[in-house]
Amino acid sequence: MNQQTIDRIRKFTEDRDWDQFHSPENLAKSIVIEAAELLECFQWSDSNYDLQHVKEELADVIVYSQNLIDKLKLDIDEIVNMKMEQNEKKYPVEKAKGNSQKYNCL
Amino acid sequence: MNQQTIDRIRKFTEDRDWDQFHSPENLAKSIVIEAAELLECFQWSDSNYDLQHVKEELADVIVYSQNLIDKLKLDIDEIVNMKMEQNEKKYPVEKAKGNSQKYNCL
Amino acid sequence: MNQQTIDRIRKFTEDRDWDQFHSPENLAKSIVIEAAELLECFQWSDSNYDLQHVKEELADVIVYSQNLIDKLKLDIDEIVNMKMEQNEKKYPVEKAKGNSQKYNCL
Amino acid sequence: MNQQTIDRIRKFTEDRDWDQFHSPENLAKSIVIEAAELLECFQWSDSNYDLQHVKEELADVIVYSQNLIDKLKLDIDEIVNMKMEQNEKKYPVEKAKGNSQKYNCL
Repeated sequence: MNQQTIDRIRKFTEDRDWDQFHSPENLAKSIVIEAAELLECFQWSDSNYDLQHVKEELADVIVYSQNLIDKLKLDIDEIVNMKMEQNEKKYPVEKAKGNSQKYNCL
Repeated sequence: MNQQTIDRIRKFTEDRDWDQFHSPENLAKSIVIEAAELLECFQWSDSNYDLQHVKEELADVIVYSQNLIDKLKLDIDEIVNMKMEQNEKKYPVEKAKGNSQKYNCL
Repeated sequence: MNQQTIDRIRKFTEDRDWDQFHSPENLAKSIVIEAAELLECFQWSDSNYDLQHVKEELADVIVYSQNLIDKLKLDIDEIVNMKMEQNEKKYPVEKAKGNSQKYNCL
Repeated sequence: MNQQTIDRIRKFTEDRDWDQFHSPENLAKSIVIEAAELLECFQWSDSNYDLQHVKEELADVIVYSQNLIDKLKLDIDEIVNMKMEQNEKKYPVEKAKGNSQKYNCL
């Protein structure tokens, strides 16, 4: 996401004085609520979905994730790289290749 | 997220030949599953949470969201700006300021 | 669920003095957390699932739903019948038969 | 839930020929979608919620849970008692009393 888009998300919250509602817990609830709305696009079919609706709900997940990053003053590259390092260890290529099993079953 | 981090996410999937599991529906399920794990950090308290755990689960949400963006060949700035435009109209500053009510109750 | 099972759920909470944690909001969070664990049984496949795991996670959803019913002093038959009446009107047989579309698209 | 209410849920599905959509996976998605709608009642406040809305969304969770029980031909008392036995062992009264920590932290 470029800086201009991130700034737009931040300005939206500031302009509405909504930081007061953005506790980490409320944002975590909001992320799961939007993620479930995204899933609703695939509730009865995995192939017959409304792409425009998918884009909107995925955008909502991303916006609330950015809100939580801002609230907790996190660095997105830092936390994602930290997690990818864990994932790379939990799912070594030689065991995980072509295999969708959870790491504790590999 | 910078290009290097995005490339690391993509390489992780490619190295494991996991694109075959990344149907949009499976990724939507994965996002909600990780979002619920993030929420679990706040299950019984809104203030007493494990920040390291929050970072890890939020990173998982972000990684699967990036996977879905890649799968559907979306432009993150385009979809977020499209949604922010909708949000700005649904929540006009003069009505929404300091108010957490849903747009259809404003 | 028979009365003995319901009583066992209630006794479990009482014995541990957990009513203090069972705010309606915390129980709503708990239900979605367990529902996502249920969904995790189907994360990468709709057919290849661990039935024992499904039973356990579904039971967790049911137990927290019972906790919320107890907390709010609801009558399960009353709320389900009230909702079924709404559903029967929203999805008239002649329109909804063999059709998985949402009521606002019928 | 009494037998009449359960029968009403089953008849609703049969009359609409919806069993074809009720794969275990689709029902698991549906449960988490409704659970998130229940959580939405508490998105920005733990105390200021619409009780009628809570009842409706909780009823939806219960109805889809019953659908999944029916689909998998499960016995609700059997699976709940099986899980309560696990819970009673994981959370012994002497350790868990008045304590909301997860079993692996007790």
